[in-house]
Amino acid sequence: MKTSNNLSNNVWVREVGTRDGLQSIDTIFTTDSKIEWIKQEAAAGIPEIEVGSFVPAKLLPQLADTTDVISQTCKINGLRVSALVPNFRGAIDGMGSGVHQLNYVLSVSEAHSQANTRKTVEEAVLDFSRIVSYRKDNPEYHHVLLGAGLATAFGCTIAGQIDEKDVLNTLEALLEFSPDEVVVADTVGFANPAQCRRIFKQVLAMTGSIPVSAHFHDTRGLGLANVAAALDVGVRRFDASLGGLGGCPYAPGASGNVVTEDLVFMLDAMGMDTGISLDKLLLARTFMESNLNGEVTKGAFVHAGFPKGFKSESVF
Amino acid sequence: MKTSNNLSNNVWVREVGTRDGLQSIDTIFTTDSKIEWIKQEAAAGIPEIEVGSFVPAKLLPQLADTTDVISQTCKINGLRVSALVPNFRGAIDGMGSGVHQLNYVLSVSEAHSQANTRKTVEEAVLDFSRIVSYRKDNPEYHHVLLGAGLATAFGCTIAGQIDEKDVLNTLEALLEFSPDEVVVADTVGFANPAQCRRIFKQVLAMTGSIPVSAHFHDTRGLGLANVAAALDVGVRRFDASLGGLGGCPYAPGASGNVVTEDLVFMLDAMGMDTGISLDKLLLARTFMESNLNGEVTKGAFVHAGFPKGFKSESVF
Repeated sequence: MKTSNNLSNNVWVREVGTRDGLQSIDTIFTTDSKIEWIKQEAAAGIPEIEVGSFVPAKLLPQLADTTDVISQTCKINGLRVSALVPNFRGAIDGMGSGVHQLNYVLSVSEAHSQANTRKTVEEAVLDFSRIVSYRKDNPEYHHVLLGAGLATAFGCTIAGQIDEKDVLNTLEALLEFSPDEVVVADTVGFANPAQCRRIFKQVLAMTGSIPVSAHFHDTRGLGLANVAAALDVGVRRFDASLGGLGGCPYAPGASGNVVTEDLVFMLDAMGMDTGISLDKLLLARTFMESNLNGEVTKGAFVHAGFPKGFKSESVF
Repeated sequence: MKTSNNLSNNVWVREVGTRDGLQSIDTIFTTDSKIEWIKQEAAAGIPEIEVGSFVPAKLLPQLADTTDVISQTCKINGLRVSALVPNFRGAIDGMGSGVHQLNYVLSVSEAHSQANTRKTVEEAVLDFSRIVSYRKDNPEYHHVLLGAGLATAFGCTIAGQIDEKDVLNTLEALLEFSPDEVVVADTVGFANPAQCRRIFKQVLAMTGSIPVSAHFHDTRGLGLANVAAALDVGVRRFDASLGGLGGCPYAPGASGNVVTEDLVFMLDAMGMDTGISLDKLLLARTFMESNLNGEVTKGAFVHAGFPKGFKSESVF
């Protein structure tokens, strides 16, 4: 399917189950099992995997081996390895790790920002500027891409509704420092398709050539509906979690991300090109699930399979 | 939210769990429990409930009491009571039942039509013309609304992909007989949002002032994404099943309909007006579930509840 406005049919799917998924469950994956999971998803054609987070190990022991995971996966052919950083200190650690991209995330909600990081949104924006300056001052890190993420952009479990102006104002402040990517996140699963259309239309108008990603949680079952809405207004990058593993430990009630394989199926069925093999993705899912201890995974495609006569549009 | 093209914000949600849901599960609800379920959904503001089907009792014993259910629910204030009919004979039975609307369903797929009814699509269209003539010839039935449904319009478990021209040609043939409503159904859960936009745009262009409904199954998790796509091109009527109960006994792999309460939540969040109380809908769900014997229900809203600070747009 050619889209009406001649946008590209190529869609970039970032796996975040290895970060957003693992940080929300009790089971701690061994470093080897994370690496195998990442290898299998890379073999399925996933172009980018957020493999961990630079946070204190005592806060998230599940991700304490992030540096090791990066060093063993950043040589995988064709895979972009990224990691989340919540602050300047994390970014410094991250830049020395060999990672390809660091995604700095701040919260648009003042209440959420204060609760999670004890910073105002303004202070959090300044942290991003310090990260960008640090990279500039250290030529050995010039290759590290720096993403800027807007958490709780569609609502907040503490503050409730978030004014869209706050999202756009925070984005405007971040754009001063030329992020390599902008991630707009429905951290706690409040978003609806109409809101997605409105917000992403405005975000895309502001970001120009900077890649924009959408990060949705499926808390109220609207994850893929939100993806389709964002896709329709021009978003071509989406975060997802294999088997829907995920959530936010600081956001009560938040459930997992959009299910990677269901997302890829939907995109494929719509004629988008993800470059991802669903068959291989299901193999990776099976491996991932074999490491769980009772945690529940989600997903419809894994049970229903391809429709009869289905023609994939993706080139593997 | 005002839609960009000044379409109405009013959305009509038809509960079909009492028909599509019940026909696909083993448990047989008592007539009293069906009536209580219907009363509770009507009290929640659901404007129409498809309460059964005029098929031989030996084929679907779950729906053998359809006539009784109709006679005891068609007086509920403000509720439209409808029933499915698969053929002319069923329609004659239905018209004498006091029902407000009969939904005649044929399959766009020749293979599916032959397998289920031993009729060609052309013969099935003729059956609809006979039903319309019968109503015309019997003034006591002039008040009965006649809907025409296009099953397997997005794909078929037997034939695979369905040519969109076949959908539109079959619709054109049905429109000759002036149905009071057109239902376009993804009977087996093959639809994707891009396909929904394409098909419903064309359907709406052909149907003029005739109401058009979309009937989606959530087999591959795309149900609400398909609703949002259809909504975006102008569809304002949707079928759904409380707790996602449902399927098609003739379509292997088909899972339940779109979950009524998740659909209503999404519409409500998008600023659409359904006139339905989600709180009361959850009470009806609890009652419905209390009659099940091990059958699994679905749904996200029932677990996640309203987002903090959520403002409903509906007027109850």
